Amino acid sequence: MSGSEAYIRGEIDRFREELFDFLRIPSVSARSEHDGDTREAARWLSERLEDAGLDAEVFQTDGHPIVVGEWRGAGEDAPTLLVYGHYDVQPPEPLDEWTSPPFEPEIREGRIYARGTADDKGQLFMHVKALEARLRADDGLPVNVVVLAEGEEESGSASLVPFLRGHRERLACDGVVISDSAMFAPGTPSLLFSLRGMAYFQLDVRGPRSDLHSGSYGGAVTNPANAAARIVASFHDDDGRIAIPGFYDRVVEWDRQTRERIADLPFDEEEYRDDLGVAALSGEAGYSTLERLWIRPTCDANGLLSGYTGEGAKTVLPARAMVKVSFRLVPDQDPERVARLLAEHVRSVTPPGVKVEISELHGGRPWRAVLEGPLFEAAGRALERAFGRRPVLTGEGGSIPIVVDFEELLEAPCLLVGFALPGANMHAPDEWLAVENFEKGTVALALLYDELAEFL
Amino acid sequence: MSGSEAYIRGEIDRFREELFDFLRIPSVSARSEHDGDTREAARWLSERLEDAGLDAEVFQTDGHPIVVGEWRGAGEDAPTLLVYGHYDVQPPEPLDEWTSPPFEPEIREGRIYARGTADDKGQLFMHVKALEARLRADDGLPVNVVVLAEGEEESGSASLVPFLRGHRERLACDGVVISDSAMFAPGTPSLLFSLRGMAYFQLDVRGPRSDLHSGSYGGAVTNPANAAARIVASFHDDDGRIAIPGFYDRVVEWDRQTRERIADLPFDEEEYRDDLGVAALSGEAGYSTLERLWIRPTCDANGLLSGYTGEGAKTVLPARAMVKVSFRLVPDQDPERVARLLAEHVRSVTPPGVKVEISELHGGRPWRAVLEGPLFEAAGRALERAFGRRPVLTGEGGSIPIVVDFEELLEAPCLLVGFALPGANMHAPDEWLAVENFEKGTVALALLYDELAEFL
Repeated sequence: MSGSEAYIRGEIDRFREELFDFLRIPSVSARSEHDGDTREAARWLSERLEDAGLDAEVFQTDGHPIVVGEWRGAGEDAPTLLVYGHYDVQPPEPLDEWTSPPFEPEIREGRIYARGTADDKGQLFMHVKALEARLRADDGLPVNVVVLAEGEEESGSASLVPFLRGHRERLACDGVVISDSAMFAPGTPSLLFSLRGMAYFQLDVRGPRSDLHSGSYGGAVTNPANAAARIVASFHDDDGRIAIPGFYDRVVEWDRQTRERIADLPFDEEEYRDDLGVAALSGEAGYSTLERLWIRPTCDANGLLSGYTGEGAKTVLPARAMVKVSFRLVPDQDPERVARLLAEHVRSVTPPGVKVEISELHGGRPWRAVLEGPLFEAAGRALERAFGRRPVLTGEGGSIPIVVDFEELLEAPCLLVGFALPGANMHAPDEWLAVENFEKGTVALALLYDELAEFL
Repeated sequence: MSGSEAYIRGEIDRFREELFDFLRIPSVSARSEHDGDTREAARWLSERLEDAGLDAEVFQTDGHPIVVGEWRGAGEDAPTLLVYGHYDVQPPEPLDEWTSPPFEPEIREGRIYARGTADDKGQLFMHVKALEARLRADDGLPVNVVVLAEGEEESGSASLVPFLRGHRERLACDGVVISDSAMFAPGTPSLLFSLRGMAYFQLDVRGPRSDLHSGSYGGAVTNPANAAARIVASFHDDDGRIAIPGFYDRVVEWDRQTRERIADLPFDEEEYRDDLGVAALSGEAGYSTLERLWIRPTCDANGLLSGYTGEGAKTVLPARAMVKVSFRLVPDQDPERVARLLAEHVRSVTPPGVKVEISELHGGRPWRAVLEGPLFEAAGRALERAFGRRPVLTGEGGSIPIVVDFEELLEAPCLLVGFALPGANMHAPDEWLAVENFEKGTVALALLYDELAEFL
């Protein structure tokens, strides 16, 4: 057992208590009423980085602060690794579906439940603790390390790219490590070969000046709620394909090897279906469930709001309807192009008598990994040592838009290694992280530095 | 000028102040938190009936109370007129679209603004004041009168039919007068030739056990919000016709005379469109706007709710979606049959992976008037005396489900004479009643008794 591994095993209870403190800060970036909390989370994180032995600084931005921690002890000639994570979290609603309150962490049956455990405070904090273990128990690190943590990942990362551009020298690195994803299955460490991108929009459908009586006016005016439904329905054809003209033009058809590797993964469709509590899975015709999740794009309405939604019957013809809709994109789609195609399509299907305003809320490009090189090799060995088996390669249906920006702006490959588990309820009530993975993941991240040393 | 007319002109300021007291009671029948207010409105109304010279009684029901006022001074051999109205109101939301608060009546530019002014407290109260005027200023009434006011009209009138059945003798009458509708135009008194019926439903679309991350799961499961949109979109074809199989089977095609009379009414489509603030009117192909409103059925989504509806972007794949949807029905459709057709249709278009539960929230049959007889003739003359011109015949797109029940259970024709004006915002923010119509309408209702005397 390495010194850092022993240190982690010895200090894990304290690490978990500290994580609980982090999770208690409701750093919901999408809600301006939580701006004080995101600031507090940034401050708290910078202190923990200092505790771990790094120099930390909190940078103000136009949005939420960016935290940078640095350890340059490996010297100017040594390579530099950049660790990226985010300290902001998704809104916790619907609150009444949480078993325990979202910002009061609680362990039940080997899982830590709280908003942000998996996405991404828990995983970011594992990096902080892995660094602490290396710096306190071992002789420093074989590489220089920069930890970069933002507070806007769940609301578009608007400040991060300008920050990367503005601090290119300080952030210069030879590789980027990100832990914001999941393992394929319990006990199965995983490295990502792809991420889907995203294009998220709000559609505001406006009709009459004000809400109308559906009896007195119904039949003579276009109902914005009916129109919104018609527009959303037009996004798919009967085969589950997206029916927006041109949408698939740049979608890469993956090679046979990748599709075979996906098919070889031990995936139990029935168990997956039962876990979700649905009678049937569905999706784009001609693709398996894992393919639908990893290498095919989607279109999902994320929110609908119109008219009367309370108890009982109100015979209102609503003046407006709101739709939140997002697309998950795959290589080589890009969100700007999807925004144009969506606007053209919506224009063509909007019935007379209503106007639709489209707002772009969030966008991120899809990504595919470089599956070779020292970082990739070292990660494979570190995961094997911590978990007792070689990692599998998986796709990820979610998006981490910044990955593409990192590769472009820092000219360094990204390694995505995550420790959440399937069903972790990221973005949903009862989000959790396995107690076991918090420990093993921290060990794996500490061992990553051992392995990297071999290549130097 | 008759005695009652002079009395009304002299007392109109007090009448209006009393009406304001009535309007201040937030008797929203659809909301259980207002149950105390509906009780208070019933009590208040019964006192005003007593003040007017009637014997009043408040009957408890399984829902909201029913108020009955009686004047039997015309004797057993005289005919009896039943006046029906309702003291409950629609929910006032969205509150921020009201210029003045919904339960704080205010006069602006000749209009009384408050929830319930037009629908129906204001119009019901005109009957009470017309009776007060007759009973205090004249020598009683040529007919016996029963005033019947319920508190559940805006939420389904569930208690009224059992009440009618249980009090058939007490409510026995030769005609029913209802003022819960609008005049065709300012200065144009109107009698109704038809009412649309209604069938109101809530659809609850349920998919996965809980909300999911739209990245991690999007593409592999049926999204209930997408499914809800698809279901609602399937309710219409491209010609604005309702696409539920069998829906039109019992729709009466009206006679040429009725359609010509509708075409002859001075209706300014452009002004109507501009008032509503829409770029274009729309609806079922092959029918005029007034026909679409009066003699053709509709299907309107009244409410949509799913997923994340707050500020910003939340990448949730919602576990469920809720749709409120209602149909306006025309003779000879009936709500039970429409419920069956809807259920069959929804079943046929629901995608695998979601379940849809349909709840019937409200139903009412459509109605067509008997356009002859003493009540109809007397009303025409009374309106001419009060407003200076003969009434026109109009349809009404809204529903007063109880009208059909009255005709069946009491075996008496209904006369629908209303004094709201187009654009009165019934069921919407800034509901209003013209100050002038409150006075002239009260006079017309008092004169109705003069005219009825002529037929006796």
